[in-house]
Amino acid sequence: MEKKVNDLLKKGAFKVNGSLWIEGDGQRFFGPGPVELLELIGKTGSISKAAKEMGMSYKKAWEIVSRINGMAAEPFVVTSIGGEDGGGSTISAGAKETIAWYRSLRDRFRVFLEEETAALK
Amino acid sequence: MEKKVNDLLKKGAFKVNGSLWIEGDGQRFFGPGPVELLELIGKTGSISKAAKEMGMSYKKAWEIVSRINGMAAEPFVVTSIGGEDGGGSTISAGAKETIAWYRSLRDRFRVFLEEETAALK
Repeated sequence: MEKKVNDLLKKGAFKVNGSLWIEGDGQRFFGPGPVELLELIGKTGSISKAAKEMGMSYKKAWEIVSRINGMAAEPFVVTSIGGEDGGGSTISAGAKETIAWYRSLRDRFRVFLEEETAALK
Repeated sequence: MEKKVNDLLKKGAFKVNGSLWIEGDGQRFFGPGPVELLELIGKTGSISKAAKEMGMSYKKAWEIVSRINGMAAEPFVVTSIGGEDGGGSTISAGAKETIAWYRSLRDRFRVFLEEETAALK
């Protein structure tokens, strides 16, 4: 290209930005929202408390957890006998590893976006 | 990480996917939708025809064009005297260059996503 894209745009703060998620069988099931929910379940020991902190309905949180558990080799969220109120929920080692991988993926994506933003100028 | 993420997930078709756009002063103004609209304006010579092909209202198309023109050093969409019906609209060389750059950016993003999807396995 002859001209830098930035020359085609007004002087200002231009930025390449984006979002990233994981699909299983064509269905989006893992991204920033689900990761935050899993982490809050791990922190609070409860799906309903995690949902509340996110301003999300219990039903919606349960659906996300159900979808994630359906994609995982072994459930990422384990609810102990006694149910949500009597027992409580924890996240598995596999969930923690997947979250760590997602964070490193986000970091690589951030580098990609920063490089593309720098190339704009 | 000890385990491959794919070992933590059920056997199936997992994929890293995402979307990409350009922000000017914190506002999203350029992505797949606006690019398609610009190309259709170039093809049809008319904002209203382009909007119709996309199943978009003229008002919405006009707002997108207005936002893009507001970010461009020189307007990307030029409507000739006589108005939309009497005259018609064209896209500038700058618009075409920016679309070409966006396509190459998408290609680099596709490589990123494919590499991350491959690393999942």
